[in-house]
Amino acid sequence: MSGPPDPRAETVRRPGPTTRARVGQMRSGTLHERRDDLATEEPLEIRIRSGSEHRTVAITMRTPGHDFELAAGFLYGEGVATPAGVASIAYCTDEDVPPQARYNTVTVRLHGPLPDLPSLDRHFVTSSACGVCGTASLDALRDRCPPAPAGQGPLVSPEVLYGLPDRLRRAQGVFGKTGGLHAAGLFTPGGETLAVREDVGRHNALDKLVGWAMTTGRLPLDGHLLMVSGRTSYEIMQKALTAGLAVVCAVSAPSSLAVELAREFDMTLVGFLREERFNVYAGAHRLTP
Amino acid sequence: MSGPPDPRAETVRRPGPTTRARVGQMRSGTLHERRDDLATEEPLEIRIRSGSEHRTVAITMRTPGHDFELAAGFLYGEGVATPAGVASIAYCTDEDVPPQARYNTVTVRLHGPLPDLPSLDRHFVTSSACGVCGTASLDALRDRCPPAPAGQGPLVSPEVLYGLPDRLRRAQGVFGKTGGLHAAGLFTPGGETLAVREDVGRHNALDKLVGWAMTTGRLPLDGHLLMVSGRTSYEIMQKALTAGLAVVCAVSAPSSLAVELAREFDMTLVGFLREERFNVYAGAHRLTP
Repeated sequence: MSGPPDPRAETVRRPGPTTRARVGQMRSGTLHERRDDLATEEPLEIRIRSGSEHRTVAITMRTPGHDFELAAGFLYGEGVATPAGVASIAYCTDEDVPPQARYNTVTVRLHGPLPDLPSLDRHFVTSSACGVCGTASLDALRDRCPPAPAGQGPLVSPEVLYGLPDRLRRAQGVFGKTGGLHAAGLFTPGGETLAVREDVGRHNALDKLVGWAMTTGRLPLDGHLLMVSGRTSYEIMQKALTAGLAVVCAVSAPSSLAVELAREFDMTLVGFLREERFNVYAGAHRLTP
Repeated sequence: MSGPPDPRAETVRRPGPTTRARVGQMRSGTLHERRDDLATEEPLEIRIRSGSEHRTVAITMRTPGHDFELAAGFLYGEGVATPAGVASIAYCTDEDVPPQARYNTVTVRLHGPLPDLPSLDRHFVTSSACGVCGTASLDALRDRCPPAPAGQGPLVSPEVLYGLPDRLRRAQGVFGKTGGLHAAGLFTPGGETLAVREDVGRHNALDKLVGWAMTTGRLPLDGHLLMVSGRTSYEIMQKALTAGLAVVCAVSAPSSLAVELAREFDMTLVGFLREERFNVYAGAHRLTP
């Protein structure tokens, strides 16, 4: 005699990177209805596990796809996991996760014990014991990431940089369909595309790229170039620095703290890279004449 | 006899919305150096206080300016503070805040007791007891924000919408200088600009706008139009909904969850609003013929 059906055996919809939707297009004063693709946005819960203990580290809105890389890259950037410290990564089958959330929950199993809880909260709510200012943020980072020795990282030619926006755009499959995604791409100093990742969140796109490098044994990325589709902020630069990247290029503007961080850690920061022109905000010594 | 100088009396640099920096411009293969303005990015710590108790709710990277509005709008969107519940807002003079962080720490004093701590963490790390999926996120929101009665919110003409991107751009003082800021603008159904706020973070720009409405007695904003400079995500729509906005327009694409939220709560969501065209993803019934 068989028991009641196991609800966990239900067919579970796995969200894809794009979602079809009916959209009204207003053109020349007339509204036409058509079907269009939207960039999917769904929450992802990132858990860490060691033995029978587990803990939720973050919930982030993201575009489904490369979820294991996103979890790995996020944990790496936060100092929670190292390449050697990850035992396995899987969608969550914990008892408390209902079937419809299964593909929105990733568990990273660690070899060692779970890190202390307070340090995990640092990303979201920092202790105010030392006050808060840009300089303090850089100080905190310096403890984890010493500045690169002068001259480290690749030399790059302006001609290679000119070609990066087009290479990034051509590799953006989902953006082409939806017009709604950020991208982060990894390139050789010669301009060859190594990997491109997309996401509704620009930090997620970079986390996925770093996670790809982490899970394929490519960290640190000190010989490579990073190109991002949007602006550069403190957080983008921090994630790049932690991954060992010395050269960061962006289609748009950097923030003041992105520039400060780049100068402090001897990184090369390029912005407004479009139509065979760019600005260089730090580390011009890596540009070949 | 006077004592030693009070270190808190030191002159403190108050960060402005832009920061001057020396920048290399690569044009036609030649690098020229010039001075340029960057959008300032600095952390802001948001504290709540009641009696002698205080607590840090969030630390966010933001562009200095309208900091009190940012704190108020953020707390309102999170359900931590109501317009009537705020006693005062001030830069922090708590003993533990060093002078250089004073303008990066805002304390919102509440009339009532401090809310329970667990609810404050919800924004960052949600309890996974109910699993995580887009539908669950909408369910959680429905508890706080019932759908608008059918037909509520303003009627708008396509001609008014066509004019919004230009009005938003013209009001963006800091973007004009730096090219590096998101904006959120509030408009009447006739297209008149009521307020525009800018920030390196697009959620912050909307928080500042909602905080402006909150501290000037204008909430809810159900008679107005919101226009944002970038994309629309779940979080942008959630903040708009909470402020009572029924019409949200954006220069760029919406995510799938932004559209789902708009349809669920009977909001009007317009995207790709540029050059006298747009797409309407939800709530087309508010468009006049």
